[in-house]
Amino acid sequence: MRTALLQSSGTPGSTAENLKVLEAAAVRAAAADAALLAAPEMFLTGYAIGDGIARLAEPADGDAADAVADIARRHGLAIAYGYPERAGDAVHNSAQLISADGARLANYRKTHLFGCFERDHFTPGDQPVVQAEVNGLTVGLMICYDVEFPENVRAHALAGTDLLLVPTAQMHPFQFVAESVVPVRAFENQMYVAYVNRVGAEGEFEFVGLSTLAGPDGIARTRAGRTEQLVLADVDAAFLAASREGNPYLKDRRPGLYGSLI
Amino acid sequence: MRTALLQSSGTPGSTAENLKVLEAAAVRAAAADAALLAAPEMFLTGYAIGDGIARLAEPADGDAADAVADIARRHGLAIAYGYPERAGDAVHNSAQLISADGARLANYRKTHLFGCFERDHFTPGDQPVVQAEVNGLTVGLMICYDVEFPENVRAHALAGTDLLLVPTAQMHPFQFVAESVVPVRAFENQMYVAYVNRVGAEGEFEFVGLSTLAGPDGIARTRAGRTEQLVLADVDAAFLAASREGNPYLKDRRPGLYGSLI
Repeated sequence: MRTALLQSSGTPGSTAENLKVLEAAAVRAAAADAALLAAPEMFLTGYAIGDGIARLAEPADGDAADAVADIARRHGLAIAYGYPERAGDAVHNSAQLISADGARLANYRKTHLFGCFERDHFTPGDQPVVQAEVNGLTVGLMICYDVEFPENVRAHALAGTDLLLVPTAQMHPFQFVAESVVPVRAFENQMYVAYVNRVGAEGEFEFVGLSTLAGPDGIARTRAGRTEQLVLADVDAAFLAASREGNPYLKDRRPGLYGSLI
Repeated sequence: MRTALLQSSGTPGSTAENLKVLEAAAVRAAAADAALLAAPEMFLTGYAIGDGIARLAEPADGDAADAVADIARRHGLAIAYGYPERAGDAVHNSAQLISADGARLANYRKTHLFGCFERDHFTPGDQPVVQAEVNGLTVGLMICYDVEFPENVRAHALAGTDLLLVPTAQMHPFQFVAESVVPVRAFENQMYVAYVNRVGAEGEFEFVGLSTLAGPDGIARTRAGRTEQLVLADVDAAFLAASREGNPYLKDRRPGLYGSLI
């Protein structure tokens, strides 16, 4: 399944402008035969927008979600994107996956918030594994800091995730995560991991780009630089199955020894 | 604490010859002010020695352990080494840590056996975390395949390991483990990890060397090539403490969400 990663910060503060950027990316991704387009953490509104987060937050089935569903339908590809989710009084840092026919397949609320900024603006989610089927693959959702915890990705592996989508807002000096942690997560869990980052300066943050799609051999199939980019790579179900045969980590685990982790 | 990694396959099949190699390394390590010398998996006897494993296996307090303790005492440094451990009818793939005054501080039995060769020759251990204090640092023991399971290293982090010693027999084509997995383990768990490999051809195996001591920033302090080598690097307790402040993974974990792992 060809997968497109939209490395962009769009226009922080304007959902309308970001929907235009998403649509332009969908046009290019569809032209390149991608079946799935993934955008960064908080792509719909911008990340470093302070009180704008609460103001622009929408429910998972709100107007912005309808607009994304419309883009997905018109261009014939699934779309995953980050956004601030309004749920009553709470605002979650969420990622939603919408199918090529515009159905809302899955919605994930970031469980591991990073630093004071996120703790000030978001309520953490409590559901560790959120998945949906896309083109016969089990696709999982996670956001940024979540992927730095090996427990989170392992939980996806145990639940059968083939491709883990990780919208992110990864900032300087943590490029080690894109360069090394993401490929290792793919290898140790025998899955594909797509890490889709923002880029450039925003408020006090400097996002590092380096969006990566890594395979179960730990090799990056594509890695963006540090500019706005759309990069593409293929997720190969047959390669994944063969790799799992040769690297039986899930079979060789000894869960009875891991009691201290919970 | 200066730590020396002995990357060597010694003389497979001869404990006496391997004790000579260990002593020569202890001389060099002590001259370089190392307080700790670590040797590879199954260093005392060789790894790919088939039935020789059971024949050369000794108890943790056997003659070979006494000989290592004597080397440690005479050269004034702690020594960690891999060996086949005889325990009644069972043979374990073990690593022992002996203090600079010759005391047997800790003995670990590999919990995650790799492939048919190891399952044919060894009984797996059942104690996931084995530690001891050396020069004020909490030193943990693990062997080869164990480190590829994030659960194992996380258990050490939760138990306070500062420096994880990983004697290994890492073979082609798995050099990704030395190059990427080991630094990521150090980073995600905020500890030092010393991965000490065999090198060269042995039976059906081709060991890849690349022994590495990685810090909590994910950067290798030293990395050997693919020849017999003694490499040294420092474990810095103050740097480790500062790094843990800046990367609060253990504090930000949400154990209540990790139930599926056990």
